[in-house]
Amino acid sequence: MKILILGGDGYLGWPTAMHFASRGDEVTVVDNYLRRNIARETRSEALMQNPNLHTRCDVFEEATGNQIDVRIGDCADYRTLYTIVDKVKPDTIIHYAEQPSAPYSMKGYDEAVLTFNNNLTSTFNLIWAVIQCVPQCHIIKLGTMGEYGTPNIDIEEGWLDVEHKGRKQKFLYPRQAGSLYHTTKVLDTDLLWFYVRTHDLKVTDLMQGPVYGLSTEQSLLDDRLLPNFHYDDIFGTVVNRFLVQAISGVPLTIYGKGGQTRGYLNLRDTLQCVQLAADSAPEKGELRIFNQFTEQFSVNEIAERVKRAGKLLDLTVELRSIPNPRKELENHYYNPSHHGLLDLGLEPHYMTDDVLAEMLETISRFKHAIDPEMISPRVRWS
Amino acid sequence: MKILILGGDGYLGWPTAMHFASRGDEVTVVDNYLRRNIARETRSEALMQNPNLHTRCDVFEEATGNQIDVRIGDCADYRTLYTIVDKVKPDTIIHYAEQPSAPYSMKGYDEAVLTFNNNLTSTFNLIWAVIQCVPQCHIIKLGTMGEYGTPNIDIEEGWLDVEHKGRKQKFLYPRQAGSLYHTTKVLDTDLLWFYVRTHDLKVTDLMQGPVYGLSTEQSLLDDRLLPNFHYDDIFGTVVNRFLVQAISGVPLTIYGKGGQTRGYLNLRDTLQCVQLAADSAPEKGELRIFNQFTEQFSVNEIAERVKRAGKLLDLTVELRSIPNPRKELENHYYNPSHHGLLDLGLEPHYMTDDVLAEMLETISRFKHAIDPEMISPRVRWS
Repeated sequence: MKILILGGDGYLGWPTAMHFASRGDEVTVVDNYLRRNIARETRSEALMQNPNLHTRCDVFEEATGNQIDVRIGDCADYRTLYTIVDKVKPDTIIHYAEQPSAPYSMKGYDEAVLTFNNNLTSTFNLIWAVIQCVPQCHIIKLGTMGEYGTPNIDIEEGWLDVEHKGRKQKFLYPRQAGSLYHTTKVLDTDLLWFYVRTHDLKVTDLMQGPVYGLSTEQSLLDDRLLPNFHYDDIFGTVVNRFLVQAISGVPLTIYGKGGQTRGYLNLRDTLQCVQLAADSAPEKGELRIFNQFTEQFSVNEIAERVKRAGKLLDLTVELRSIPNPRKELENHYYNPSHHGLLDLGLEPHYMTDDVLAEMLETISRFKHAIDPEMISPRVRWS
Repeated sequence: MKILILGGDGYLGWPTAMHFASRGDEVTVVDNYLRRNIARETRSEALMQNPNLHTRCDVFEEATGNQIDVRIGDCADYRTLYTIVDKVKPDTIIHYAEQPSAPYSMKGYDEAVLTFNNNLTSTFNLIWAVIQCVPQCHIIKLGTMGEYGTPNIDIEEGWLDVEHKGRKQKFLYPRQAGSLYHTTKVLDTDLLWFYVRTHDLKVTDLMQGPVYGLSTEQSLLDDRLLPNFHYDDIFGTVVNRFLVQAISGVPLTIYGKGGQTRGYLNLRDTLQCVQLAADSAPEKGELRIFNQFTEQFSVNEIAERVKRAGKLLDLTVELRSIPNPRKELENHYYNPSHHGLLDLGLEPHYMTDDVLAEMLETISRFKHAIDPEMISPRVRWS
């Protein structure tokens, strides 16, 4: 299969590229290093020094004999994206090319407009490049569970059957997100659904929860193949932040009451999910939506798990509640469905104490590089 | 009240400006003539030669003694919009500054990207100019009934109370539009709702149906004050197209089966509705939504009404079904609620035979300028 990965330098993009290339697919990655640039500008760089994409691919080829083709370019520039899609003629495009930080998107006008333009334009361009060059191509779009927000009813898998005054209608599940970043993903979904209906595109939208994990099968071959591990308040998710705080000997910073509950998954399961989606494309004119996570936890539960895993390594881990920089419910109903990917064959890696302890061990190898100043919240929601 | 009207040269923008200025409000209009430029490029110009905005304002001042301040500029350029909002410091901003044609948005990539960028960026810029300059300002946004599409359940007024597996949640009514233009309005709504929640904006979203009407109280003073009357397939709504075909002696072109049903309103009622909204601003942090129309008709019913009105003027009007250039249901359930504006005091002008006959008479004064080639559909949906 010819696979084009937009945002192939990212936390998920790079492991995805290695994963498909390792099983023999023809993989091309595109990236413009937007995340690396923002991370540097906001003092939020990754814990390990990840080599640039060209070097990553060279190391990967040395280690495995498999090639990955690299294009440095901006998917928000139509001519760039069109040219690549027209040249590569992919069977599947995996779209990760979005500014991925919620706090960054809430910082101010400049950060908001960058997020809005980059994310919406890259999706719009992708749709049109597919319409104009490869109308049979399967688009796999990374959405987020955050699109749904935290409604007081069960979150179904993408769609909601509504019965109202004795009549019935199936709707795209109503979305109501908590940051501009997440809202751009809501808009992406609206836009994809429109073009699926009018131009018969084939689209899989993966509504993914926060991903944790420091390694994949390929990254174990060479530290230079590690995924980008962000542990700061801008790009780091709560699991990463807690793990680094545990290693640093500072209390885990729980935002507010800590009852905020989300669906999480291991990086290895993201790779499984994307592969399962790629290997079973939807029909033309179908928008297929999966809720992509394996377990749900509150922030307090994650903190307790990190504390417990720390004990295995003789780390004393303290918890501390701090004022919540976000506008979000701190205690809420949360019951999202997630059957589709399990039905396709997903075999989850769960967040056991051993898994967390292994992550702690890897992080401790890089303890010298930790900058604890980067972990406290620097962005407030209004 | 200080009122800023974005898109003040438009079919609704210009009558709105005259309406508020006539009752003593301080009115500033902004426009970049985008619609006029597109109309010229697509051979879709208005029936009457409407003077430019500066001249319109001069004529209006001569006729009424009231002033309207004009700024020519692009609301999709942030510096332009910010500067105007910061200078004017409006109490209310009425946002019409969007590319308003569904067929234009469906023509091809160039038209799609223009519509997408213009509409989303003008709304995004408006939100941020308000946040940064006038956070107390009331935003009145023109949405469209087309955002809802044609669901098989009743369309409620902006919001839907869902009961699901024994639990309840109020959602923004799920939207599923039939053109890219209408989809940009869906995205506008998502975006406004997000910033209302996080930045406590005051927003009224008017979900308006197709507007018909050729005159307002002010335009009767001088033909140079007439609203822009488009009767082509790109900018002309179905009522306008049928009236011009009736005058031209060509059959009314019904798209497909003609069962497509929508909520319509008279231009004079748009002015009433916008005034009612402006005079009763919502609270901070409130998104207030009204469904803005007064009567619903199928395309076939409108054709029959135009035929009947034609008889009053001794016109023989024939009806003809042509292949539908759009992707839409031609027979469907349609039962939208519209109580909010009536509750505020709206007194509807209904589409009587006399109202249509009066429009036919006005059009017949400009019969020499009709180009019937412009009425047949030139854009197909895929």
